[in-house]
Formats: sequence, structure tokens, C-alpha cells
Amino acid sequence: MTTQTAPVHTPSSELFERHRDVLDGALAAITSRGWFTAYPENAKAYGEDAGPAGKRAFEELRGAQFAIGQPTTGSWIGAERSPYGFDLGITYPQLDVDAALTRATEVLPAWRDAGAEARTGVLLEALHQINARSHELAHAVMHTTGQAFPMAFQAGGPHAQERALEALAYAYQAMSAVPAEAIWEKPQGKRPPLRMRKQFTVAPRGVGLVIGCSTVPTWNSYPGLFASLATGNPVVVKPSAGAVLPLAITVAILRDALEAAGFSGDLVTLAVEEAGGTIAADLAVRPEIRIIDYTGSSTFGDWLEREAKQAVVFTEKAGVNTVVIDSTDDYKGVLQNLAFTLSLYSGQMCTTTQNVYVPRDGIDTDMGRKSFEEVGADLAGAVDGFLSDPARAAGVLGAIVNDDIVARTDAAGELGDVLLATKALEHPEFPDATMRSPAIVAVAGTDADATQTEHFGPIALVVPTDGTAASLEQLERGALAHGAMTAGVYSTSEDVLQAARQAALTGGVALSENLTGGVFVNQSAAYSDFHGTGLNPAANASLSDAAFVAPRFHVVQSRRHIAEEATA
Amino acid sequence: MTTQTAPVHTPSSELFERHRDVLDGALAAITSRGWFTAYPENAKAYGEDAGPAGKRAFEELRGAQFAIGQPTTGSWIGAERSPYGFDLGITYPQLDVDAALTRATEVLPAWRDAGAEARTGVLLEALHQINARSHELAHAVMHTTGQAFPMAFQAGGPHAQERALEALAYAYQAMSAVPAEAIWEKPQGKRPPLRMRKQFTVAPRGVGLVIGCSTVPTWNSYPGLFASLATGNPVVVKPSAGAVLPLAITVAILRDALEAAGFSGDLVTLAVEEAGGTIAADLAVRPEIRIIDYTGSSTFGDWLEREAKQAVVFTEKAGVNTVVIDSTDDYKGVLQNLAFTLSLYSGQMCTTTQNVYVPRDGIDTDMGRKSFEEVGADLAGAVDGFLSDPARAAGVLGAIVNDDIVARTDAAGELGDVLLATKALEHPEFPDATMRSPAIVAVAGTDADATQTEHFGPIALVVPTDGTAASLEQLERGALAHGAMTAGVYSTSEDVLQAARQAALTGGVALSENLTGGVFVNQSAAYSDFHGTGLNPAANASLSDAAFVAPRFHVVQSRRHIAEEATA
Repeated sequence: MTTQTAPVHTPSSELFERHRDVLDGALAAITSRGWFTAYPENAKAYGEDAGPAGKRAFEELRGAQFAIGQPTTGSWIGAERSPYGFDLGITYPQLDVDAALTRATEVLPAWRDAGAEARTGVLLEALHQINARSHELAHAVMHTTGQAFPMAFQAGGPHAQERALEALAYAYQAMSAVPAEAIWEKPQGKRPPLRMRKQFTVAPRGVGLVIGCSTVPTWNSYPGLFASLATGNPVVVKPSAGAVLPLAITVAILRDALEAAGFSGDLVTLAVEEAGGTIAADLAVRPEIRIIDYTGSSTFGDWLEREAKQAVVFTEKAGVNTVVIDSTDDYKGVLQNLAFTLSLYSGQMCTTTQNVYVPRDGIDTDMGRKSFEEVGADLAGAVDGFLSDPARAAGVLGAIVNDDIVARTDAAGELGDVLLATKALEHPEFPDATMRSPAIVAVAGTDADATQTEHFGPIALVVPTDGTAASLEQLERGALAHGAMTAGVYSTSEDVLQAARQAALTGGVALSENLTGGVFVNQSAAYSDFHGTGLNPAANASLSDAAFVAPRFHVVQSRRHIAEEATA
Repeated sequence: MTTQTAPVHTPSSELFERHRDVLDGALAAITSRGWFTAYPENAKAYGEDAGPAGKRAFEELRGAQFAIGQPTTGSWIGAERSPYGFDLGITYPQLDVDAALTRATEVLPAWRDAGAEARTGVLLEALHQINARSHELAHAVMHTTGQAFPMAFQAGGPHAQERALEALAYAYQAMSAVPAEAIWEKPQGKRPPLRMRKQFTVAPRGVGLVIGCSTVPTWNSYPGLFASLATGNPVVVKPSAGAVLPLAITVAILRDALEAAGFSGDLVTLAVEEAGGTIAADLAVRPEIRIIDYTGSSTFGDWLEREAKQAVVFTEKAGVNTVVIDSTDDYKGVLQNLAFTLSLYSGQMCTTTQNVYVPRDGIDTDMGRKSFEEVGADLAGAVDGFLSDPARAAGVLGAIVNDDIVARTDAAGELGDVLLATKALEHPEFPDATMRSPAIVAVAGTDADATQTEHFGPIALVVPTDGTAASLEQLERGALAHGAMTAGVYSTSEDVLQAARQAALTGGVALSENLTGGVFVNQSAAYSDFHGTGLNPAANASLSDAAFVAPRFHVVQSRRHIAEEATA
């Protein structure tokens, strides 16, 4: 005879205390906006066995059904293919959307009533577990996005986790700003004061929808996912058809952590669809969906902003990022820094520079005056040299995520005078990987059509201008017209740098000045750098700030006279 | 020969220090959500001369042009008529919308670059000046909205000013949460750390549009107006055609305060139109307008939420407020409290109770069991008795703001069985005032159509239910379906009160429990009560909370290596 035991739940208050140091560190960091880390970015910090174990875990997921105990239609779907040249062969339980939304609405009150600390505790525990599986997630990110392993590990693992923790910290801070209870005592002259006890409850907006993208499935999705959950909203995660696995692992861990703490796993569900499906659009206009976090094309992002009227919509869309070169006292540093920026993940980042503005009559450098033509040729040479080592090239470029980008890159020569032609490189480890080195093209001037649109992928344009003032005008106007996530400037003149700040301020774009070392314009550090501003068309929000979390919940109050209460 | 002198500006830093105590008090109050006041609500606190002087100032404005030095078409427009029975005869300079928006965009950078403290200082000074003119504003509010003087003074004056200060405090808190500068130092193992200096600048979204309503022109408009200005956004104020003067005085004071501090007065402009104009809709979809604060009909509010996609839209719209009566140990207190609630400003408040739910089989009270019919009759009697003194009636009811409300009230008998018929009262001081006492009507049940829609004005419905559980279901469902700003419950049972809290929480409506004394369900105290939740159709935002200010600005950063900076 066996003894049946009920599942033992870890109280969420215990989880909150267990991870309180991590939260406190994040809270301090978003206040100071200095450097902070909770999750080591060094893959070796996870122990000798972690690498092989993570790879094994990934291999075991391949060619199998990925079980998630969510409301499902009974179908198993999924057709992911690694940009490194093989099918993942993983299928996922197709979400029964109606059942999942009904279920989310049913399980919401218990999650809401648990309160901010309990929710935060459970989510910190989930993040802790996600962190422990960073190697497995790195392979999942690598073989869905094409990122090289070092970036897939850092950006897809710890850096994404820091962004999640940052969002948790903002959410906790915002919820904590409202006291649970207040005594309100209003003097009445000689009469006794009016005294009331008021209670304030954080109430979620409804159900959140997180729409992931194909290139950075965790880094861009985690902030919205964790911010919505922390503020009490159940979430449906809708991954890009080609990059499901990283978010499926995430959802599975979250569900387990929720259930272990006594909550329903159905607070988080995964809405997989095959390519060409319309589930994102269908979900986006459901009345239950009150928050949407989206990363992807401007076309669909604009549609969401326009059509999903019942929801608060946070979008990150396309943009044209610029670097303005005025002058430098470290010419080699400029070239090396830009070579890495343009090469990293084959330019498939929303933060990668596209337009490099250089005065038509050249620039002053520590290596003498350089003509416009010399700057273009030297930049091409720097990229070419940087990628001359095949192992390094593979470790930086990674693979191209889809055929559209291959076609666009191969046709980049049509945009102007080719300074550096793209090359189809061979990956030393994955011979079937689709690789392209950056194409660098000089265009005729700032009026060139090519400068006015995003060429997503490894394509950079070198653009002659009538001088740095004209370059900065392009930085500002381009950001306002086409959107921009990043801007860079190189100058030895403090006046030029100040003018660049003013242009970036009006353009609403984050500015990096004179990056010639180990920081790159396309990198954004959690707790310190705001990713996106909400001020230009590339994004209507920032990852993360108070505005990113505050609209996800509201406060409902009750009040009663204190004398009345005593007699009740 | 005279000496020409430049205008002497008061530095805004001095203004900030001058009013710092007031701001600090408000900051403490929004944190504790206890009672706080910066602006005395007692009209006598302003000195003996203030009353007559305010009245004189109002009289001097009548029949004249109200000068505002804003971009204008050259036309003078305005046709306000006091609900107390006379034309104001005031005209205002018609705004040249194109010129005003161009100008707003031009003067934005100086206001933005001044920083949070400077902006807050100027706005605190403006509020101080507005407060000093509370008597004048009270007459302006009274003779545009029909509020009786005591309410026009308090709600239109000091209470509105507290709401403005509350919004300023939230804005200052939100902006202060982002440091102006940060040092970011990332360890690099044995190599020297990466060190960067980062600068963070609060950048406004663009131009704000505040659309005022005809019943509470200052109280409902000030929070958005001050929150937008504080966060760096110029604002166009578009008053209701019938309630221009209170906002015209406000705009004039703001412009003077801005100019006295060295800023452009054109940061705030007034867009008056004659009745039936479309300027609100025209402005709302202009690309320059990035924030909209609106109070008014659901039809136009929903249109704004749908069509003004370029803007963040904060709306307060129609709703159906409910009170659930389960039981009481102070029956007379319940009746007296509700009699005042239903009478105040002739029920023309967005917070006034409309549907009173009472069990069909009656309630327990300290005066014995009361049948449904007795409760209805007693409520009617309490209202009738309360208004039997003409002076008190005039001082509470005020006048009806427009003919639609008169017609609706006069037809209220069609909604069900009349418990108390509306009466056309005569105002002792203003014989031409349009007055109506509340109509109280019993309907057949919760299914009655009348319970499912707002009857704005002095109309209350007493609704029989199958019991308190059914009443609470109506509270919750009604709020979610039709919107609600307030809900009340009377019960001697703690279980019922807890159930009411749960219903209010799900319905997203602020709950008042057992109000039998000097606090009324339709009153909302700045710093302590959240006005609206954003969780039901009556409002998509709260006055005020972090979510009300955070989306009005974004943060733009610049970063550079510290070593680099030293050599620059």
C-alpha cells in the first residue's frame, strides 16, 4: 500500500526571500544605471559539465515532441530549420486558443490575489532555473536564429535574463510605489477628523500577448513576458515560426515554476503556428488580450498599433541606424570598432549600423587627412581583414536566418558602388550553414533612395555629405522619418559631440560617442542602457523603463470609515 | 531719455526652491496616500477681501474680450451662457492652429532642455498664482458649469489645484527616477574595466492636447495639463464651448508664469471653438499631437482611442455607478448620505450613483426590517426632505448645465415607477437658473434596459434584486460592460463587504463601504483616492498614478568612454 501525498509547494514568499539579493541588486542598478550582473555572461562560469550537458539537452529535444501541458487542439506542429543547415524536427502541442484564453481568465484571480511579492518570487525562481539552462538555451537560440554560439549564449542567455530581471525590478518598483493600505485623516476644524482606512490592490489589465521575432527570440521577448506576468497578467507567448524552441523552453520552465509554487501553469501558454499562419493577428484583436509586446516588421507592428485597440501595444520595429564620422584621434580604432559592429551576427540586429555618413571632402585623423574614398576603402579593408580568419568569421557572423536576407545581401551591389562585395563563406563546423559577409556600398549622396530604407542584414552604406552638420541632420531626420535604435558619432570636437547629442535628442535615438574599444554601438546593457526610446518610428517603447511597466496594471481601491470598521 | 531694460526673469531654480515644501508634501502624500492639502478648501481662508475681489474680477471679464497673446486668426469667438440664466458675453482670440502647432514645436527644445526642476518650479509658481485666484475661478466655474458656488469654489479651485499638484508630483517622481548621469564600469577580468559615462535626458513626446468637459473644466483637465507640461510637452487646451472661461484664466496664468521665467508663453495655447465645431477632432489626429487628455462622451472618447493612433490617449468617459444595499446599522445615515450624493450638482458628476441595488425581499437595519418598497420610499423621502429648504437646495443642486439633461430628467418617469418626481425649483438668487431636483425611479429588475445605460443628470434608479449576491454581480458586470467610476456598498456583514471588494476588484471600480458620515461616494480626494482605474470602459486611465505620467516622456541617452572623454 502506497501513501498518496499532495504535491509540496514552495511558498512564493520563501522564493521571494531566496532571490531577494538579486532583486535588490537590480533595483539598485535601475536607479543608478551603473553596471550590474546577476547572471554570468561567461559560458565557463557555469562549470565544466554545463557546456556538454547543455548540448546534450538540446540534442535530446531534436526530432521529438516538446511536451507542454497546456490546452491543445491535439495537433503537434512545428517546422524549425537551423540556419546551420538541418531540420530541428521538433513539434509542439498546438494551442487551443479559445480554451487557453478562457483558462487564462479563470486562473488570473489567484495570481492577482497572490500579490506583487509572491509573483515576483515565483518569477525570480523561474529566471534562476532559466539561467541554469543557459547552455541548452544557447544551442536553441543558435539553431533557430543563426547566431554564432558566443552571441547565442550571451545575448540569448544571461543578457536576455538580465533584461527579464530588469523588467521584474521595474514592475516590482512600480507596484511597490502603491501602499497596500493607507490611513486618511482629514481635519474638520473643531469636530473630530474624518478617518478612513483605504486598501489598494494591484489589478492586472487582462491577458498579455508576447509576439517573438526570428532573430532575438529571448532578449526581445523576456522584458514584456516578465513585466506582464509580474504585474498579474497571464501571457500567451507567440514565437516566430522559425524560432520557437528558445521560447518553448522558457515557457516550460515558467509553467513548472508556477506549478511548483501552487499556481496554474496555464498562466503562460505557447501559441506555435506554422509559417504563414495568422494566429498573431487573430490573438491580437481578441477582447481578452489587453497587452501586446511585439518585435518584428514595421508593417505588422503598425497594424497592431492601429487595430489592437483593446490592448496597450509595445512595439519594436524596423529602423535605419546611422554613424556620423567627423574626425578621430584613433582612426584604426574607429575602423576596427565598426568592422566588428557591421559583422556581428551578419548585421541581423535591430541595432546594427546601416548608414555611415562621411564628409565628401574627408576627415581629419591621427593618421592624417583621409578622403571620403579612403575612409570607404579603409572600412571595407577593416571588415575584410577582420573576417579573413574563417574560425573568427564563423564565430562572429553566424548564419543568415532566412532566404530574404540572402537575396537582399546578394543584390546589395545594386544600391551603389561596391566597396566590399558580400561573400558566401563556408562554416568550418556546419558546411550547410548559409553565411554571408557584409556588403559595403558607397552611395551618391544623402538623397540616394537606398539611405531612406532599412536593408536588414549584412549591408552597410557609406554616404558622402556636405559636411558634419549635414551628416547630423541626416542622423536626426532619418531617425524621425524611418526610425532608429542606435546612432554613433566620431569626433575630436566637443562642439560636434554636443551637436550630435542635440540631433540624437530630437531624433529620439540613443547615441554612442567615439566607440573605439570594447563597446559597440549595437550593444545595449541591461539596467544601464535604454533600448529604444519610443520617440521615433523604430519603437514605441523602451526596454525597459517605468512607462514599459506602469500601463500593465491598475490600482483598485476600497475605503471605509475607521469607526465604522470597528463596529463591523 | 529713458533707459530701456530687458525683462527681468525669475530663475526657475529659484521658483523650484520657493515651492519645494509644497512639492515635498505632495510627494510624501502620493507615497503614503494619506490626507494632504496645499491649497485651503475653505473659501474664508483666502481673507475677507478675496470673496468680493474674486467676484469683481469675474464681473470685469464679462462682456469683454479675453486677451491671450497666442497665435490667432484675428477672430474673437465665444458664446458662453451661464446656467444661472445670463450670457457671459466673453470672446477669446481664435487660435491659428497651424501657427500654434508650429510655434509649439519651435519652443519645445528650450522647455525640454530646461530640465525637470526648472519646469516643475515654473508650474508650481503658476499653481500658486491660480490658487490665489480661486474666488475668481469659482465664479467662472459656477457660471459655466452650473455648479453651486460652494462646489465651484472647492472642486473648481483648491481641489482641482491639488489634482494638478498631484500630477506634478507624479511627473517629478517619474523624471527623477532617471539619473542625469551614470558611470558604468564593467569588469574585464585581468584587463582594465570598461568605463563609460552616460547621460540621460528626459525628452517629451511632442505636443499635448487637453480636451475639457462642460461640467468639471478644471478638476478633470488640470492633471493632464500639468503632467504634460511638467514632462516637457507644450499643450493646446481645447475647452468645451460652454466652459471656456475657467480654462482661459488658467491658460493666461500659465502663459504669464512661463514668460516671467523666461520661457515662451506659446507653450500653452487655448483652442476655443463655437458649439458644433470640429477642432478637437481636427487637432486630435495632427501628427504634432502626441498626447491627448480627454473627458467627455464615450462616443468621442472611443473615437479618440481608435483614431488618434499617433498619440497616447487618456480618456474619461461615461459610466453607470452603482450602490449595493445589503444591510445597515445606521439606516438614517445611509439615507442621508445617499440623499446628498444624489443631489450634489444635480447628479451631473461622473462619480454620482445611478443604480441602487436592493434585495427584492428587503434589508435588515437598525430600524428593523425594511422592505424593498420602504427603502425606495425612504430614499425618496430623504432626498425630498434634504432639498426642502430652498437655500440649501440651491447651494447643493446648482443649475443644470444643458437642455439635454433637462429633457432627460423631465422624461425620467418613463424609466419605471416614479418614487420621487423631479421638480423645477426656483433659485433664490438667480431666478433664470435652470434647476431640477433628482428623479428617483424604481425599475422592474436587473434586466431593465434602463439599468444598462447612463442617464447623466439627476436621475437615480432603485433596482430590486434576488439578493445581495445578485446585487454584487450587477456591480461587477455593470462596471465591466458599461463602465463605472465609483461603487458603494452598505452591509453589516464582513463577508458581504469582502465579496463586494472582490466584485469591485474584478469590475475595476473604486469601492466605498458603509458611507454614512461626511464622506460621499462621488467625492475623490487628491493624493489618496485614485479617480478611475483604467480597467473598465468609464476610463482608460487613473487620475493620477505612475501610468498617467510615465508615457508622456521618454529618455534619450548618450554614452562615451571615460578615457576618451578626458582627451576630448
